[in-house]
Amino acid sequence: MSSVFTKIINGEIPAYKIAENENFIAFLDAMPLVKGHTLVIPKKEVDLIFDLESEEYKNLWSFAQEIAKKVKNAIPCVRVGVAVVGLEVPHAHIHLIPLNTVEDMNFKNERLKLSPEEYSEIQQLIINS
Amino acid sequence: MSSVFTKIINGEIPAYKIAENENFIAFLDAMPLVKGHTLVIPKKEVDLIFDLESEEYKNLWSFAQEIAKKVKNAIPCVRVGVAVVGLEVPHAHIHLIPLNTVEDMNFKNERLKLSPEEYSEIQQLIINS
Repeated sequence: MSSVFTKIINGEIPAYKIAENENFIAFLDAMPLVKGHTLVIPKKEVDLIFDLESEEYKNLWSFAQEIAKKVKNAIPCVRVGVAVVGLEVPHAHIHLIPLNTVEDMNFKNERLKLSPEEYSEIQQLIINS
Repeated sequence: MSSVFTKIINGEIPAYKIAENENFIAFLDAMPLVKGHTLVIPKKEVDLIFDLESEEYKNLWSFAQEIAKKVKNAIPCVRVGVAVVGLEVPHAHIHLIPLNTVEDMNFKNERLKLSPEEYSEIQQLIINS
């Protein structure tokens, strides 16, 4: 069965996309810890990020670097944090999380409930930054 | 003033080193969340990881990939998580954290207090894995 992320890639599940190229895609996390919480994933369905082939792995991190700079420009925060956890969805994904305190990266925190208008506004801010 | 990590690189502060090359170094976190919690850093003292020049940034992540595989082989865990937070030490560093649950990556958790013998044993396990 396809992962939920593969369904996003295939357009079967909608997502607020930030950027996309042949191999990678970035979109807003549907259960954000903070506003601007973005996921960066390889289109190839691989569970463990460290199992990606070396070039693809490096290019994924390069893509994340570009997206992180856009998030930092768009969302007021001290810095953009990075997390790879992956205990829930078996499709490698990098969390980019605008941080003001370390508590902003606590995955046990309750997730924000944003309206479609709020998601769309954040999406446009990041895309246009 | 040099960062605490630059002092480790210069040998002014001791650390349990895992691996080192011309540009990067990996060593056990002195305040580990779990056993095997490892830091990977560039020798160049840069605050924000995303400010590293593209090639160095990619090579840092490649180095972290090698170290993460060694940590996974050495330390029983479901997977090795990744975090970049950096709110305390202004010298870019990647946390590699053996995870069994997402709670293992909660930076508010109390840190382990390990004996030198325990650190040394973990160090050898990772180096030899």
